[in-house]
Amino acid sequence: MPSSADMPGQDVRVARTRADVARAALAVLRAAGFDDLTHARVAEQAGYSKTTLYAHWPSRLDLLRLALDALGTLPHPRPTGDLRTDLVAELTAFRGSLADLRLDRVLCGLADGSAGADAAPLRDRITAEAQYGLRVLLAPRFAGARLDAALSMLTGVVACPSLMVGALPDDAALAAAVDMLIGSGEDSVR
Amino acid sequence: MPSSADMPGQDVRVARTRADVARAALAVLRAAGFDDLTHARVAEQAGYSKTTLYAHWPSRLDLLRLALDALGTLPHPRPTGDLRTDLVAELTAFRGSLADLRLDRVLCGLADGSAGADAAPLRDRITAEAQYGLRVLLAPRFAGARLDAALSMLTGVVACPSLMVGALPDDAALAAAVDMLIGSGEDSVR
Repeated sequence: MPSSADMPGQDVRVARTRADVARAALAVLRAAGFDDLTHARVAEQAGYSKTTLYAHWPSRLDLLRLALDALGTLPHPRPTGDLRTDLVAELTAFRGSLADLRLDRVLCGLADGSAGADAAPLRDRITAEAQYGLRVLLAPRFAGARLDAALSMLTGVVACPSLMVGALPDDAALAAAVDMLIGSGEDSVR
Repeated sequence: MPSSADMPGQDVRVARTRADVARAALAVLRAAGFDDLTHARVAEQAGYSKTTLYAHWPSRLDLLRLALDALGTLPHPRPTGDLRTDLVAELTAFRGSLADLRLDRVLCGLADGSAGADAAPLRDRITAEAQYGLRVLLAPRFAGARLDAALSMLTGVVACPSLMVGALPDDAALAAAVDMLIGSGEDSVR
């Protein structure tokens, strides 16, 4: 962003409003989840009128985009160089983000047929961000369909249990998934 | 179900209505998905009044339960005895069921906070049915956290891509997932 000294007054105000609303949208997403990320809730949180919000960001997806802007990147732990340790740390961080932002509900909302064509780029942005650290760790070891499958498997271990059994995976499940994937489990050849 | 000869006339009529509505609910689920599994759609499909449906099955979850009753079990291919072949066949069958019934949308709907306390048993029923064949194949090889993780990983390979990248996994991704899990992949020790 250019410094405010370079910007006309109106642009400065719009940028400040955007930053305020983005922070408010992220706070609502964290506190209430995507299902309740509404103009009314964000307007109240930000201290702006609903009219102002609708004028600049007419859809709920716009509010989600602002919240993601305010978030920046998801936390990715710094790699230690030990693949097992680093993969477990990534999955643990992803589990934290999933819980923090209720990302499963966000992805469900974006997959809803009524979400419209704007949903796919947002979904892809969240997926890319969620898988970024795993991809960095796995790309030197796997390629092609195996890389895709490995990313789906590890992402699935974190994201699927909340949909399929109503709970996040525990530490043992994350470690077991990594062990099976990289072949260092108890029953594989060492 | 007792034979109709054992049942008073009213029970027979209720049972016939239930069967008709269950088949209609399954047809709507297949054609339109859980988001459009409404009393109006099912009543129209079944040729009964909405009033009748609401009287017996007041919630949308009741309609989903009927649809699952009409479905019976998901298709599970008969095992051949070759673990790799059987796991790939199970994943392929699960991918077909996911597409046929839009199970990802059903699970999203059941995970919605507004779905209420009745949602969890239905979710568990779908998950148990989806994982049944995989569990039979994996239970002799894995236990505890490793079995849970293996089930999540393989289920995740099928169910997560539709939410995370908007497409079902191709055959290569399913085969790669199985190879990595059972350690017969190209880069593992044979």
